[in-house]
Amino acid sequence: MKSHRTELTFQVPTRRAFINITPQCRDALAESGIREGLMLVNAMHITASVLINDDESGLHHDYEQWLERLAPHEPVSGYRHNVGEDNADAHMKRQVMGREVVVAITEGKLDFGTWEQIFYGEFDGRRPKRVLVKIIGE
Amino acid sequence: MKSHRTELTFQVPTRRAFINITPQCRDALAESGIREGLMLVNAMHITASVLINDDESGLHHDYEQWLERLAPHEPVSGYRHNVGEDNADAHMKRQVMGREVVVAITEGKLDFGTWEQIFYGEFDGRRPKRVLVKIIGE
Amino acid sequence: MKSHRTELTFQVPTRRAFINITPQCRDALAESGIREGLMLVNAMHITASVLINDDESGLHHDYEQWLERLAPHEPVSGYRHNVGEDNADAHMKRQVMGREVVVAITEGKLDFGTWEQIFYGEFDGRRPKRVLVKIIGE
Repeated sequence: MKSHRTELTFQVPTRRAFINITPQCRDALAESGIREGLMLVNAMHITASVLINDDESGLHHDYEQWLERLAPHEPVSGYRHNVGEDNADAHMKRQVMGREVVVAITEGKLDFGTWEQIFYGEFDGRRPKRVLVKIIGE
Repeated sequence: MKSHRTELTFQVPTRRAFINITPQCRDALAESGIREGLMLVNAMHITASVLINDDESGLHHDYEQWLERLAPHEPVSGYRHNVGEDNADAHMKRQVMGREVVVAITEGKLDFGTWEQIFYGEFDGRRPKRVLVKIIGE
Repeated sequence: MKSHRTELTFQVPTRRAFINITPQCRDALAESGIREGLMLVNAMHITASVLINDDESGLHHDYEQWLERLAPHEPVSGYRHNVGEDNADAHMKRQVMGREVVVAITEGKLDFGTWEQIFYGEFDGRRPKRVLVKIIGE
């Protein structure tokens, strides 16, 4: 069994954003030389997500609005977590969107349907944050 | 290390449905000959889910109502993604229910609690859609 | 390839709770002797979650309030699943928070960001319930 580890860092200038990280995941796979196995991609921070969905700006706008409705940032004082912080809503949004994805590796490629793309979902940006890519297989 | 890949296809006649796919996952495991490892089961489409829950029709009805409340289909024009499409809500519902499950394989079996069953969750059906089963182990 | 399996049991005296199970997961890893691989940690029950987030009591209180808003326990009769049961809301809460986490194992350690901790999320307690830890790797 082979294993490979890559860490990605993102500094998003805004509080929230979705960033397509499929190219970086493909690069990690190429470096690994693994042809059959599983790739785990996870946020290393608890106010961010890694998810798979569509690379379509209208949808990302809809996600933003929808998550804000499910777990509003304001009023900041509505959350007990917000003592010296203001990111409680980001901990909720991250649970809806998920911490991680696991992707099949087949014949040296991400084994994806037509529209699947991997995104980093940032809900409390404006500082450097990390994503882990771990691949195991042969 | 061994690996095995199976693709399942579902054409759901309605927009939304939950389909128990545990038998097909068991078949894939039997074909693989793998006795210890991990099984990944994921939707290959971004408006569908794979999830583990109870095979109980009342619950599936409740999920349907609940997801419609969290991310309503109507008004279709309420989503920017819906330009020539009407499935933005399906992209939201899929994030709540999840893209994938990872299941432990122990002694050649799905290592499940009493009530765990694997479902395909369709949120934008009426066309053929695919599920990937990937197993790695020994 | 090596594999290791541990089962944890929790009997939560209340209906709902979050329990930090990171120490038990570390123990399982130490027993396994695995240094590079993946760890799956999943609830074996369908009204409970395993998730990764912050060990902060204010946040856990916020999660409790937020989940109750998204999927209220009352009125019990509002769910078709609640025939001789009253836990339909727990099946919803578990989907929001997730069934499982997959954690990278690197150099014999949980490959975690600074604040990542593994929690058992109970939404229908007051009886013994199980969590599965399965590790594969080398």
